[in-house]
Amino acid sequence: MAHDASLPSADRIARAQTAARAAGLDALLVTPGADLRYLTGYEALPLERLTCLAVPTEGEPFLVVPLLEKPAAEASPVGALDLEIVPWRETEDPYALLASRLPRGLARVGLDNHMYAEKVLAFHTALPGAEQALAGGVLGALRMRKTADEVAALLEAAEAIDKVHSAMEEWLRPGRTEAEVGRDIADAIIASGHARVDFVIVASGPNGASPHAEVSDRVIQAGDPVVVDIGGTMPSGYCSDSTRNYCVGRPPARYEALYEVLLHAQKEQCDAVAPGITAEQLDAVGRDLIAKAGYGEYFIHRTGHGIGLETHEEPYIVSGSARPLEPGMAFSIEPGIYLPGEFGARIEDIAVCTETGGERLNLTSRELRILAG
Amino acid sequence: MAHDASLPSADRIARAQTAARAAGLDALLVTPGADLRYLTGYEALPLERLTCLAVPTEGEPFLVVPLLEKPAAEASPVGALDLEIVPWRETEDPYALLASRLPRGLARVGLDNHMYAEKVLAFHTALPGAEQALAGGVLGALRMRKTADEVAALLEAAEAIDKVHSAMEEWLRPGRTEAEVGRDIADAIIASGHARVDFVIVASGPNGASPHAEVSDRVIQAGDPVVVDIGGTMPSGYCSDSTRNYCVGRPPARYEALYEVLLHAQKEQCDAVAPGITAEQLDAVGRDLIAKAGYGEYFIHRTGHGIGLETHEEPYIVSGSARPLEPGMAFSIEPGIYLPGEFGARIEDIAVCTETGGERLNLTSRELRILAG
Repeated sequence: MAHDASLPSADRIARAQTAARAAGLDALLVTPGADLRYLTGYEALPLERLTCLAVPTEGEPFLVVPLLEKPAAEASPVGALDLEIVPWRETEDPYALLASRLPRGLARVGLDNHMYAEKVLAFHTALPGAEQALAGGVLGALRMRKTADEVAALLEAAEAIDKVHSAMEEWLRPGRTEAEVGRDIADAIIASGHARVDFVIVASGPNGASPHAEVSDRVIQAGDPVVVDIGGTMPSGYCSDSTRNYCVGRPPARYEALYEVLLHAQKEQCDAVAPGITAEQLDAVGRDLIAKAGYGEYFIHRTGHGIGLETHEEPYIVSGSARPLEPGMAFSIEPGIYLPGEFGARIEDIAVCTETGGERLNLTSRELRILAG
Repeated sequence: MAHDASLPSADRIARAQTAARAAGLDALLVTPGADLRYLTGYEALPLERLTCLAVPTEGEPFLVVPLLEKPAAEASPVGALDLEIVPWRETEDPYALLASRLPRGLARVGLDNHMYAEKVLAFHTALPGAEQALAGGVLGALRMRKTADEVAALLEAAEAIDKVHSAMEEWLRPGRTEAEVGRDIADAIIASGHARVDFVIVASGPNGASPHAEVSDRVIQAGDPVVVDIGGTMPSGYCSDSTRNYCVGRPPARYEALYEVLLHAQKEQCDAVAPGITAEQLDAVGRDLIAKAGYGEYFIHRTGHGIGLETHEEPYIVSGSARPLEPGMAFSIEPGIYLPGEFGARIEDIAVCTETGGERLNLTSRELRILAG
């Protein structure tokens, strides 16, 4: 049963309006993507024609859409919101149309972080007096704090991706290429209930030393450690992302030693999740343990990223971020150790900060899983 | 056999550099997407971390990548180019790093049209003296003129999507919902050789009057006209896009009359493709015929869009565009007639302008296809 966490509570636009006002913005301009879906439930494709939600801080919000998209917008959850739809015809200038409906003399407008440059520059021309800023601070702050429905949707996504990891021995065998295994995993991601496959990394042997390796035509060998990092988007719009490590037969001893360090570090980080700990403190929990074991220079990325309607969103668990965790924040905890030319390992769970601590959503064993050859 | 049309000829970056100089740009900045793939063959995901190709018009181009993406970049076709890779660490400012390696005092930089606003504004800060413009004029002009290899890749994509349309009777039956039929079509798009499904529109009965309807839970009825508009991306990176119209059993007489008008208009437009005709003239060929038959107000969108590494790119076949067609340009010809509340129809082929005329890449019959109930 799909959760309807992606359906906007009627007050999300109102809360964004209030937060924008507090941030010194006179309007928010939101084009298709996760921000628009969060605010309106409308899952429009980001195309060259302008679709844009305008939320002036003084006045009524409205949605500008190409005339040919109007029926699709009305059939979406937008139809249930009290939101004026303003269509434009192919030969009209939609930026000028949108600007003409905003209050005069706006000093500062907030653009959704993923707005295309072509639209950023067109708004610069259409609103010549307005300084452009990012709406991400305002919208990210809202999206970052998940409601119970949103956490339930993330749990549903985690359960689906856990199912795929649980059946890995069906596909991961020596003699097959990473790409062959990856295609089977992609099918399984859909079969497990996802609406879309977002990424499939099957990184065997030395390829595991590249954190974003995806798949290659390398044939998996007996004794290869294999990093499998997979995720997709559920019909609710919420995303999954989990990494486990496999070995067909016995791995090298040097790998086993590395894996013990990583396993301990990742578990300590999951256990450290609680309201008040900062993102950089949580990052340091694992980084310090890995460094103490002598692998410091081989953990070359941050600990994790927030997750929700996008796979990567706020809060980032990274050195330099003094952001304290709060209940409802959901993010990955995925330390890794990468020995160039040899192999690598990464363990990744999605965790949610609760009122009293943390909860891990991915529940498959984090131990290295030895598969029969 | 996959075409390697997506592999950059070594001189694409050099040609972009020359074109940028002629356009008065001091540098091009290109983040992940079709422009980056066209120039370098690197198929990076557009994520929050900065990956950016910098092409100063005076000096050597270089590619800035997150340290953790460096092995993936090297393993991509970038590894075969003579292109310096500049990695950055998680706690560095990649925008400042990139700016520090550009020549001083740039007056005007061209940003890829789909660069995210967060990156546009970060470059505005990192390059405070440089006016921001769009690189689309320069890069779109290169991408718009397809080589023979690129046309071959588009033909391969067209043949794959034609296979799906040819087997439509396997899935499209009364009693099934649009969404059920759509899922089967998505599977068939992959089975036909596409790497990715980009969109599936199954718009039955009154839903066909919405040009971008996608799918719904509406149960298809005997006698419903159904618009099926589908496309995906091949392993080469090149896209398919074709629309055909089906009816399970006999359609309403009013629909048959409308369909004859549309069929004639679309064929005349395909036949009119030739070097020198302008985009707006080609648009008018179909629009005038449809208007003369009394349906002018029901053809509510442009005639078509260019296609290549993106489904929608230059040249747009639209009123107001005086661009003359040139050999190598590839685009859709897809007039439609939409009667709100009743039904709609659209016929879409990809066409390529040749030295002497035009060539249609989609070869399934454009006639209304009547399926057995």
